[in-house]
Amino acid sequence: MLDSLFRPKSVAVIGASNRRLTIGYRIIQNLFDMEFNGPIYPVHPKASFIKNLPAYPSITDVPQDVELAHIVVKNTMVPQILRDCAQKGVKVAIINTAGFKEIGGDGIEIEKEIVRIGKETGIRIFGPNCQGVMNTDPLIRAYCNFTFTRLIPGHISLLAQSGGVGEVINNRLYELEAGIRMYASNGNACDVSIPEIIEYWGNDPETRVILCHIESLPDPEHFYRVAKAVSKKKPILGMKTGRTRAGAKAVSSHTGGLMKADTTVELIFEEAGVVSFRDEEEMCQAALAFSRLPVPKGNRVGIITNTGGPGIIATDEVIEAGCEIPDLTEDTQKSLKEALYPEAIVSNPVDVLATAGPDHYMAATQALLQDDNIDSILLNFITPFFVDCEGVAREVTALARDADKPIIGIVMTEKTGWGKTLDTFSQAGIPTYDFPETGAKALAAMTRYAMLANRPEEAPPAFDDIDPKKVSSIIEQTRSAGRSFVPQNDAVEMLAAYGIGSPKAQQVSDLDRALEAAKQIGYPVVLKVESEQVVHKSDAGGVALNIKSDAELKAAFGKMSDAFASVDPSYLVAQFVTGDGREVILGAKKEGTLGHVMMFGLGGVFVEVLRDVSFGLAPLSKSRADEMIERIKGFPILQGIRGQAPIDLERLAGMVTRLSRLVADHPSIEELDLNPVLTFAQGTSPVAVDVRIKIETPAS
Amino acid sequence: MLDSLFRPKSVAVIGASNRRLTIGYRIIQNLFDMEFNGPIYPVHPKASFIKNLPAYPSITDVPQDVELAHIVVKNTMVPQILRDCAQKGVKVAIINTAGFKEIGGDGIEIEKEIVRIGKETGIRIFGPNCQGVMNTDPLIRAYCNFTFTRLIPGHISLLAQSGGVGEVINNRLYELEAGIRMYASNGNACDVSIPEIIEYWGNDPETRVILCHIESLPDPEHFYRVAKAVSKKKPILGMKTGRTRAGAKAVSSHTGGLMKADTTVELIFEEAGVVSFRDEEEMCQAALAFSRLPVPKGNRVGIITNTGGPGIIATDEVIEAGCEIPDLTEDTQKSLKEALYPEAIVSNPVDVLATAGPDHYMAATQALLQDDNIDSILLNFITPFFVDCEGVAREVTALARDADKPIIGIVMTEKTGWGKTLDTFSQAGIPTYDFPETGAKALAAMTRYAMLANRPEEAPPAFDDIDPKKVSSIIEQTRSAGRSFVPQNDAVEMLAAYGIGSPKAQQVSDLDRALEAAKQIGYPVVLKVESEQVVHKSDAGGVALNIKSDAELKAAFGKMSDAFASVDPSYLVAQFVTGDGREVILGAKKEGTLGHVMMFGLGGVFVEVLRDVSFGLAPLSKSRADEMIERIKGFPILQGIRGQAPIDLERLAGMVTRLSRLVADHPSIEELDLNPVLTFAQGTSPVAVDVRIKIETPAS
Repeated sequence: MLDSLFRPKSVAVIGASNRRLTIGYRIIQNLFDMEFNGPIYPVHPKASFIKNLPAYPSITDVPQDVELAHIVVKNTMVPQILRDCAQKGVKVAIINTAGFKEIGGDGIEIEKEIVRIGKETGIRIFGPNCQGVMNTDPLIRAYCNFTFTRLIPGHISLLAQSGGVGEVINNRLYELEAGIRMYASNGNACDVSIPEIIEYWGNDPETRVILCHIESLPDPEHFYRVAKAVSKKKPILGMKTGRTRAGAKAVSSHTGGLMKADTTVELIFEEAGVVSFRDEEEMCQAALAFSRLPVPKGNRVGIITNTGGPGIIATDEVIEAGCEIPDLTEDTQKSLKEALYPEAIVSNPVDVLATAGPDHYMAATQALLQDDNIDSILLNFITPFFVDCEGVAREVTALARDADKPIIGIVMTEKTGWGKTLDTFSQAGIPTYDFPETGAKALAAMTRYAMLANRPEEAPPAFDDIDPKKVSSIIEQTRSAGRSFVPQNDAVEMLAAYGIGSPKAQQVSDLDRALEAAKQIGYPVVLKVESEQVVHKSDAGGVALNIKSDAELKAAFGKMSDAFASVDPSYLVAQFVTGDGREVILGAKKEGTLGHVMMFGLGGVFVEVLRDVSFGLAPLSKSRADEMIERIKGFPILQGIRGQAPIDLERLAGMVTRLSRLVADHPSIEELDLNPVLTFAQGTSPVAVDVRIKIETPAS
Repeated sequence: MLDSLFRPKSVAVIGASNRRLTIGYRIIQNLFDMEFNGPIYPVHPKASFIKNLPAYPSITDVPQDVELAHIVVKNTMVPQILRDCAQKGVKVAIINTAGFKEIGGDGIEIEKEIVRIGKETGIRIFGPNCQGVMNTDPLIRAYCNFTFTRLIPGHISLLAQSGGVGEVINNRLYELEAGIRMYASNGNACDVSIPEIIEYWGNDPETRVILCHIESLPDPEHFYRVAKAVSKKKPILGMKTGRTRAGAKAVSSHTGGLMKADTTVELIFEEAGVVSFRDEEEMCQAALAFSRLPVPKGNRVGIITNTGGPGIIATDEVIEAGCEIPDLTEDTQKSLKEALYPEAIVSNPVDVLATAGPDHYMAATQALLQDDNIDSILLNFITPFFVDCEGVAREVTALARDADKPIIGIVMTEKTGWGKTLDTFSQAGIPTYDFPETGAKALAAMTRYAMLANRPEEAPPAFDDIDPKKVSSIIEQTRSAGRSFVPQNDAVEMLAAYGIGSPKAQQVSDLDRALEAAKQIGYPVVLKVESEQVVHKSDAGGVALNIKSDAELKAAFGKMSDAFASVDPSYLVAQFVTGDGREVILGAKKEGTLGHVMMFGLGGVFVEVLRDVSFGLAPLSKSRADEMIERIKGFPILQGIRGQAPIDLERLAGMVTRLSRLVADHPSIEELDLNPVLTFAQGTSPVAVDVRIKIETPAS
């Protein structure tokens, strides 16, 4: 269906105008300038001509078929015009007009109405409040957009939630002479969605790399699913903006509190294999490399330079980005020694010296291309007066053109004087970069894509010892009782149903029952207050640990029942378990259609003060659970430092995968914290000492 | 003296050449191209003319005075030529020739010889193995350099340790139309040094901002002293490269081990008020802003935008850089409401809407200039087809020209079509940026300079209860004994001499004395092995804590004397002190002429696993000591979390300042660790439980 949007046979502009400073004029002018390969039908209530084209009072008056229509009339008129379009058989309407959801109030209602019309009539809607699309395909040449950015045909397709950001990126790609395949900015996106477009471009053979700017994801699951599939075929570069000052959504869990505004999108990017950027320029520079060069097989970079300083900068950058600068093989070093000046440095980074000419650069490039230790080449070339620079460019590009490793050329020069040198690169299709930082970052991005794309696929483990029905029935029961938090006893049973252990415990309401429970469980015990109103129990004095006798229990109970009299709590008496001192925290939070984001961290100050946590998407495979555990900065503590035994990491990972399965199986779990989880040395499973599970109430 | 280098009345080129692809030709050509305002004397053994100039067989044959001479002859000939120059009365020699210290061997010897000649004769040496200098002053126009970069006269002076990096930066500044005042790249820097040049530029009224690229600092103290003084007058932007893969220098202390390759330089930058960069492009973009705009008074940024997306990106960037986006005053909001479209957003960031024209931009800019809550303005302007963009530029620049707040214009446009709009900015001297990220980063750098420059000056505290002589005598005694580590007993006394407390302790050699010591000190005690060969005592089993009786002491002593029999150790019996569980680590490491770098961190895993440490320069003022303590990520732990009492932070800061005074007074202390230091709640001073002091041996 998106063919009608991106490859329209004919375009109507409803609200076309002869006044130059209007959108209705500009769209037609842009279609003219791009030499759109099809008829354009201006629609205007009175004019008989718009520019050189006959105009029609209504879309229904157009005698021929219309595939795509721009709507640029006032917001209140849009519903009727849209119906007219549907009646005429228009396939897609680009509603450029603003004044919908984004202005609130009436705008929301009008947007709802056009969505309804779309559903009723089958016409697809792009926008509203949007720029439009472009397609440089020579068979199409559709500039269905009112922006000012110019295009060079090529292989980058760009999707921007913000039209402004789209313009900035597109404009920079033009300056970089990086060719565009298609462009889309769909504003309020009431119908045609970002994932739908990514999927379409995934199937477009001429799109080699997809760029995507995102402010928010209305349907994160759809994006995730599509991006994951497409990124296997071609790189997707993503940028999420709006990381700071995000609307603070009330959360009641540690997990929710520890997530930042961009945690979910960044997690989706990573899990879907999307290379994430925080800077438009960096994304453009990387797009250039992706559109022209092969992807490296691994992260081992060979550096060639003719001057020390920029070589050092390139080294800093690639190492900080997680690449390696490996040793060269002996063969390589030998051949470099033969080919280069005696003072040249033949280890990595290779310094060919400032006086190096075409032969030296050719030899060094060839040697690194042939070296099995090297996956990619960063070639620094500062253009001295006393060197045949065009010759260097000629030799290097001749090798780069057919190479199966990417060669990133960093050509540091005065562009007027050395224009021919730069032209040699550009005519060979080899991108050049002005700074070692920029080139190194572009290469690091390609390497990151390679690493993401090469990760093995691994299904989450299947468990045959779990009892999902039990959990469902507890959730149902909690809901029926009108509660949003699962009572402690039940929460422990939910965990148990998925093989997650907790200390023995009983919920009690008075001291006598508490004493009886303690007898059954056996001292030492813990006493905890139980009330939806008390969130941080420890802080509030609602937890007494290591109670060793009836007397101590009586004292603790007395104190708590005084302190919390106002909330009329119940109590929990539980077995007092001590791990080996290394507590962790595990959590989950529902993120719309995506499902649950899982969180893992070391307990106590590590989470509260240092926010040393990692995230993953439920359900987790074993290796993703391992990654989450290994990724926290405090991981060595779990491995054991200074002679301390490691905790049982296998069993901990088991708990993480089981918990992720529990929430994945039960989408109505809104938030879940296990805090703390006590860990033990080899052979003993961790136990969840405290659990807090919030379920979606029918209203929420 | 540097006037002769940067403002020479005459220039000789010794090793001048008529062959185009030589340095000896290029320097003369560059002087010609720049229209150097003075005579040029080529020196060549045989030629009678070089280019259009009469040549001389030797510098001594030049009939007139020569102020500055380039030497581009073979390295072995340089010493004699340099003597000739001195004899002729040349004031400064730029030795472009390579083949000195950087090639090792003979090169080192030749470099030593030229340094000697310089000292003997008084001729100053720039280089060797260097590019040279440039000065765009219309009275001078000296391009004493063989590089290819072009220059626009202006107010940025650039100093680059690497000529290659200098070229890249200079070239980019040219592309940005950012004007250069002076340039220098002094290669091996055997005489004229980086600090000397910075000092010179500090006194040059036409230099408004100094850029400085550094790979290493041979005399860090000199750099620090000069940079600190100059940065009070004008901004210095610094970039240290070579952060990764630095030559690993053997260190025996925690402090040394926790310092990274760039810790010292970054610390110097911060303490000296130098704004630090990690990216050449960012530094160039910031230089442009510094050279044209006033420095903001504080960190409160007002954002104006005509499209949402780029405004969000600008917000992300400035907030992440530590700036604030404060609320606007009611007056401002009121005047914005009156002047802008009804749908415009009149809070910060202000969205004037895409249809906003000159009047709207003028009103918004004026309102933010007048708002006392705002220190600087980020003005986003994406150029729509339907707006009078030149008019916007005209109004905004008219205000910006005389404003006392910096206005950073981010003009997102297609540069051919909107050239006049951009010209309007550039003719008014107002820089524009292509990306919200770039503009925001430039503003953040200006803000950072303002914050550094506005820090109050505060002298380190004077202590009247310290005993420096005692410490000197212990150090002397240790040296006389041929030791590099101060024995534990003595180290404790050194600390005591500066008012730093330690548990009571006695050094003993056998069990009987150990038992006697324990009796005097009182149980519980600690037993520690004492030997230079045992570094991580705890790991090696050389520490027994909380010994409560003679029997336990006997057992522990027996075990240790078996385990460490081979190193023939002595032992320490010390009072067993427990703090409140919050241990810290303090350290110092000598860094050449700079003195000591101080380190502070939380003890145990926080240092070992998380490397959560901060650094400072000795001697520390009280407020710098406070900053060091507050800067670690784990600081809330010292303040007390979850109802725990804070430790006595005043007393801890006292210990930090005293320790910094101790090492500053005794430069022969090479490394020092107090690990752990036990801290206590209000009213009790922290104590250093273990101390390790290494002194410089005469050989080191």
